[in-house]
Amino acid sequence: FRQWGSKTPGHPEWGHTAGIETTTGPLGQGIAHAVGLALGAKMLGARFNRPGFEMFDYRVFGLCSDGDLMEGISSEAGSLAGRWGLGNLNFVYDDNHITIEGDTALAFNEDVGKRFEAFGWHVQHVDGHDRPAIRKALQAAVAETTRPSLVIARTHIAFGAPNAHDTSEAHGAPLGAEEVKLTKQNLGWPEEPTFLVPEEVRPVFAGPGRRGAEARAKWENLLASWKAKYPELADSLGDQLGRFVPEDLDRRVVEGMDKDAATRQHSQAVIQKIAAEVPCFVGGSADLEPSTLTWIKGAPPIGIDDGPARYEGRNLHFGIREHAMAAVVNGLALTEAFLPFGSGFLIFTDYCRPTIRLSALMGIRSTWVFTHDSVFLGEDGPTHQPIEQISSLRAVPGLRVWRPADGVETAMAWCWSVRDAKGPNLLALTRQKLPALKRPAGFDTRDVWRGGYIVRKESGVRPGVVIVATGSEVSLALAAADLLGPAANARVVSVPCFENFLEQDAAYRESVIPKGARRVSIEAGATWGWERLVGDQGLMIGLDRFGASAPLADIQKGLGFTPEAVAERIRGFLGA
Amino acid sequence: FRQWGSKTPGHPEWGHTAGIETTTGPLGQGIAHAVGLALGAKMLGARFNRPGFEMFDYRVFGLCSDGDLMEGISSEAGSLAGRWGLGNLNFVYDDNHITIEGDTALAFNEDVGKRFEAFGWHVQHVDGHDRPAIRKALQAAVAETTRPSLVIARTHIAFGAPNAHDTSEAHGAPLGAEEVKLTKQNLGWPEEPTFLVPEEVRPVFAGPGRRGAEARAKWENLLASWKAKYPELADSLGDQLGRFVPEDLDRRVVEGMDKDAATRQHSQAVIQKIAAEVPCFVGGSADLEPSTLTWIKGAPPIGIDDGPARYEGRNLHFGIREHAMAAVVNGLALTEAFLPFGSGFLIFTDYCRPTIRLSALMGIRSTWVFTHDSVFLGEDGPTHQPIEQISSLRAVPGLRVWRPADGVETAMAWCWSVRDAKGPNLLALTRQKLPALKRPAGFDTRDVWRGGYIVRKESGVRPGVVIVATGSEVSLALAAADLLGPAANARVVSVPCFENFLEQDAAYRESVIPKGARRVSIEAGATWGWERLVGDQGLMIGLDRFGASAPLADIQKGLGFTPEAVAERIRGFLGA
Repeated sequence: FRQWGSKTPGHPEWGHTAGIETTTGPLGQGIAHAVGLALGAKMLGARFNRPGFEMFDYRVFGLCSDGDLMEGISSEAGSLAGRWGLGNLNFVYDDNHITIEGDTALAFNEDVGKRFEAFGWHVQHVDGHDRPAIRKALQAAVAETTRPSLVIARTHIAFGAPNAHDTSEAHGAPLGAEEVKLTKQNLGWPEEPTFLVPEEVRPVFAGPGRRGAEARAKWENLLASWKAKYPELADSLGDQLGRFVPEDLDRRVVEGMDKDAATRQHSQAVIQKIAAEVPCFVGGSADLEPSTLTWIKGAPPIGIDDGPARYEGRNLHFGIREHAMAAVVNGLALTEAFLPFGSGFLIFTDYCRPTIRLSALMGIRSTWVFTHDSVFLGEDGPTHQPIEQISSLRAVPGLRVWRPADGVETAMAWCWSVRDAKGPNLLALTRQKLPALKRPAGFDTRDVWRGGYIVRKESGVRPGVVIVATGSEVSLALAAADLLGPAANARVVSVPCFENFLEQDAAYRESVIPKGARRVSIEAGATWGWERLVGDQGLMIGLDRFGASAPLADIQKGLGFTPEAVAERIRGFLGA
Repeated sequence: FRQWGSKTPGHPEWGHTAGIETTTGPLGQGIAHAVGLALGAKMLGARFNRPGFEMFDYRVFGLCSDGDLMEGISSEAGSLAGRWGLGNLNFVYDDNHITIEGDTALAFNEDVGKRFEAFGWHVQHVDGHDRPAIRKALQAAVAETTRPSLVIARTHIAFGAPNAHDTSEAHGAPLGAEEVKLTKQNLGWPEEPTFLVPEEVRPVFAGPGRRGAEARAKWENLLASWKAKYPELADSLGDQLGRFVPEDLDRRVVEGMDKDAATRQHSQAVIQKIAAEVPCFVGGSADLEPSTLTWIKGAPPIGIDDGPARYEGRNLHFGIREHAMAAVVNGLALTEAFLPFGSGFLIFTDYCRPTIRLSALMGIRSTWVFTHDSVFLGEDGPTHQPIEQISSLRAVPGLRVWRPADGVETAMAWCWSVRDAKGPNLLALTRQKLPALKRPAGFDTRDVWRGGYIVRKESGVRPGVVIVATGSEVSLALAAADLLGPAANARVVSVPCFENFLEQDAAYRESVIPKGARRVSIEAGATWGWERLVGDQGLMIGLDRFGASAPLADIQKGLGFTPEAVAERIRGFLGA
């Protein structure tokens, strides 16, 4: 336990030890991810179950603590599970009345059962040390098929340990040899050997393994007859479980993306194209779909009818709950049968950062689509304008952050994300319209996947200045380069994805951003980290303070993000 | 509205327009900050009210939406308000059944009233267009003094607008000239002039101003007689409302801080010293106080007795609710009568990042104390080990991030924070023991406030290498410098606070980290942003991947954070 390389780290880690279904640890993440896992079962069932063939009818069981239930994410996820009628979700709350600081009542005297009833859950109370009562409660929970279930089990921490029983000290610290001895005496358990598995226990524990093998064999028989009866569905199931994405998807998606539009609008078009070829592609928004433009057209939403919940759709209404949204998206990704996305405004990545981080830690295939990606969202003001968000997200290990500059880059970023088997990708998209970039001869759209490439070549053998930009600032850089004229002989480089660019070999990186050249960066966000591309002698045009509430044009002018202002700053830099 | 420099930006901004009591906008922040404002009133009352002298008995009123109540932070804050018995907190829920995506029922069919009853709130339902009913409900809410109140007011968005009534389109878009005309017709209102204030309305609106002036005069009379009766309390009130901190506090706090200990332990000692001299200094932890060591000794906790809630204490049990904790701390800071802090593990800054950001945006005097500040927390594993957190927090405009290296730096960071009138400070502290640093002759402890300074001078005129480190890596850098020996002639620089260091003039910065020198950074976290100090040609020793669950010594060895491994890497760098 908790040793280097051990199978039992401090908290369960998905992909590290067999049988772990999601990484948990940060409180509330388990119950919220479980909502996604349970929803995934329902969505698979809606797609593949047929009369007499319950191909996907599995249930999700979980154990949660007072800490999980104090965290806001569990309220968000609990409310969603109730709304979606997830009768296949069954949680037991280990209600031991003890937190690290002492009795839970120090900070937690709410009526948890009533809260979950308010969310539409089926709630039961049991003595958590009464095994027949727990069994009965779980049977009732399973019998309830239209509501998620919470079994509130009153327990005693360090049960049976005479001095540690019901104490907060027992939360994180081992009992110690003496207390273990006293506990064994108290419970009538042999003191030796230290680890004892009584003979009569072995067959009991063998039971679930045997029953599991039988259930699996039965399911495989069912699968065979289902495949025979529904051969076309069998192909779909293969695609779903393989999360099939055509090798050349990007070649078709990128077609016709050479229009002037906001990258969120390009994304809207791309989503439709991907959805047409990738049935396991599903997603939704935290109540911002009319702005994030993430609706999969022609597909119904999940579970919103007035009658019983329905799960055959592809669009998810998460409500105003970014944190639970991210966990549900991760839960769907953890089914390994969906390529899910969640969307919102970029500033609200702050609301779901712990869960985006878990997607990166697990290396799962979640896509994060966040629009309104800079101060140029305008009137909503500084509370809604991302400044440090892009930079902060780039710092998350294992997360790829894309900030596409036009339709071609948006298409390629999306296609990278749905094909990326290594981990999550985040797309930061503009609210405002951007011009389609003109690129040099020889440009291949897959150059975008290199993370950085030249969009404007200089004349002659050496650029007078290399201007590196992302997203909405690439067209600004091009306009400024034109204003600077032949004397400056500017090269402009677009870097839609730092992570991919930094993974290229040194020769490629040097060919795009030569270290010897004068270098400038432009990004309408914190300059934090930009030295990595433009060096500590480079000029970094960005924003290291909060924005203001004003229309787009006023903000561009007020903050110096016009071609004229940028050209002037670069002239000053080159002259210095 | 929403114009450059206007008094009415897209969302209310504290400090920008008179009468705004907190910046809101990101959903759920308003109601959560209001809990802190209401608690502040109770705490002031407990300190200064005396029989017949209700010096502080003000109430906090707020209006919230479905979005606020869907966000997890409102459940966290609602549960805390219930626990603390905040009878002076009164919210009206504008229950208009409309979100941006459509009917709230798409994602929100829970019983909100029942949820808040579960939290211990007093809940009423009214027709939100029936003014006498609202008045009656607010009177009942005010009459209820031991529980916070929620008035659920069923309303209709765009009430009276014939085509926009009850539609999601009315959420963010203006009605337009034609619909405004139809609405006026429908409501029997004159079409002209566009902005009409009927004569009979003026005296009604003048009423509150007159009543406010009267109430103020009455209170000032009360204050005068209270001061006469309790002269010693009058001095305390002056200190409280002025948030008095002695000018030379740091000189006393830093005394005796030259011991080997974890910086969280140093912080524990410092907290006691500050608390002794600064009565408005209060704080608490999100159920991690036995680990963050943030208890103010000798002072009771707030509101935990079995009987009625009590507010005279200085310690807050926030439960496992980092997000609401941060909002309550901000609410206390917004009273401008407290210097509050919140604490937890550094990884959990991710759980309260939106609210830490609001403290920076408002420029208020919250202190954030986060311990277990690196992978060296050990066994809890990667879900609990910060990697990118320090770097990400440095990117937040207006937030000062301190990572002290020993007792002296911890004392000085704390003293800076309680004296800093410009905005919030965050202290990142170690779980593990660190040695007290030996510093060169001429060192003044206030040099720590410069954010970066030399802790080991080289010989002669020029260092062979400058090693820049923070926190636990400063002593590691010193040990590595010793191993490198006279040939390397290393200077070691401690940078406890990037923000303060970068605000120093160029001459000072250059004197500490000369640009011409070979430079190395060491920090047990993401290297993202470190080029700002050591340049793009510097060697950055850090961690750009997740950690592992293991004991401290194994992690130090496994990740190459031993003096030998560091010296070896620096040797390689210098040789290259």
